[in-house]
Amino acid sequence: MPADAALVDLLAGLAYGELCAFDRLADDARMAPTLGGRAEMSAMAAVELGHFQRLADRLRELGVSAEDAMAPFVPALETYHSLTEPSTWLEGVVKAYVGDGMAGDFYREVAEFVDPSTRTLIHEVLTDAGRAEFAVREVHAAVAAQPAIAGRLALWARRLVGEAISQTQHALADRDALMVLLVGGTGDLAGLSALIGRITDRHEERMVALGLNN
Amino acid sequence: MPADAALVDLLAGLAYGELCAFDRLADDARMAPTLGGRAEMSAMAAVELGHFQRLADRLRELGVSAEDAMAPFVPALETYHSLTEPSTWLEGVVKAYVGDGMAGDFYREVAEFVDPSTRTLIHEVLTDAGRAEFAVREVHAAVAAQPAIAGRLALWARRLVGEAISQTQHALADRDALMVLLVGGTGDLAGLSALIGRITDRHEERMVALGLNN
Repeated sequence: MPADAALVDLLAGLAYGELCAFDRLADDARMAPTLGGRAEMSAMAAVELGHFQRLADRLRELGVSAEDAMAPFVPALETYHSLTEPSTWLEGVVKAYVGDGMAGDFYREVAEFVDPSTRTLIHEVLTDAGRAEFAVREVHAAVAAQPAIAGRLALWARRLVGEAISQTQHALADRDALMVLLVGGTGDLAGLSALIGRITDRHEERMVALGLNN
Repeated sequence: MPADAALVDLLAGLAYGELCAFDRLADDARMAPTLGGRAEMSAMAAVELGHFQRLADRLRELGVSAEDAMAPFVPALETYHSLTEPSTWLEGVVKAYVGDGMAGDFYREVAEFVDPSTRTLIHEVLTDAGRAEFAVREVHAAVAAQPAIAGRLALWARRLVGEAISQTQHALADRDALMVLLVGGTGDLAGLSALIGRITDRHEERMVALGLNN
């Protein structure tokens, strides 16, 4: 199995994730209660699209069509997004921070197992400048005004995590090279379990920042 | 009436137009028949958002909140977009080229009447790198495959123009300073009529490029 099959999968999965993130953030921006909030979430979407383009460029450099390489990841990501369509502005804000944050942590972990140039690219496209502050500000203000919201948002975050894990498993089940990279990189099941533990810890930190831990 | 009231209106109307263009292009990208087309229209959306941000920055430099300055333009643009919601990918492509093209021509004309620094900014945010080629390619390919589409798309383009003119009139009716700038800049009714003639000519050129002139 060629080493670069995993690399292509990694970049392509991330690229399609960015294209979807663009799409969903642009959509959710419409629910913003203010023009300022709408502009802010739209700007996040535009940043994701820039990241998508960098990943598509790298795939092209590797001699691969981004379109072809992304195709296997379409079903899992479409399913994730259709099962976690926010019905309020705050659900969208939490999804942009918690859902995308968790996906980012996963990619950063896998990036440890690839060449330094790819790792740098992945770290660069995963910077979420200002997103944490934005989500924390919006959620704190909303919960201060209406404390009952906290429980519903905490439940929503749990649902995001559940669907993200479930769809990641689906996507990986079909991508042998990526799975080999992940298992080989962590060394053994204990390593894989430690990786999942780190991702879980960072998720908990986000929930604490939002004030949604219980 | 302070001269900069017109300037603020001009930048704010354009800024809100860019924010809406981002929103609509991101939405219409979902109808793309291919991932490549979806990525291309999404990229156009992200470019518009960058333009929006430059205009919002300039408004801030002028001591104005973009959010407040844009508010008067919300109804006209929302009405335009709700009355011209594309129901197919090709309608979206034609709207992105013909509708946004006509709006751009209008702003370029008005930019002639303001200070050089604002004029440069307006010209820069109106560059539509690659959009013409994209629309021409998509429409030519579709019409070649299914010639009957041409008539429907030509009708669609006429509707876009009608709604654009109608909503521009609505927006201008409320914005005295902008109207004074426009009428003062053109000199007289003959000048205003020449301006409208130039915008119409450029619209016709786009229709010819698309092969939708009859």
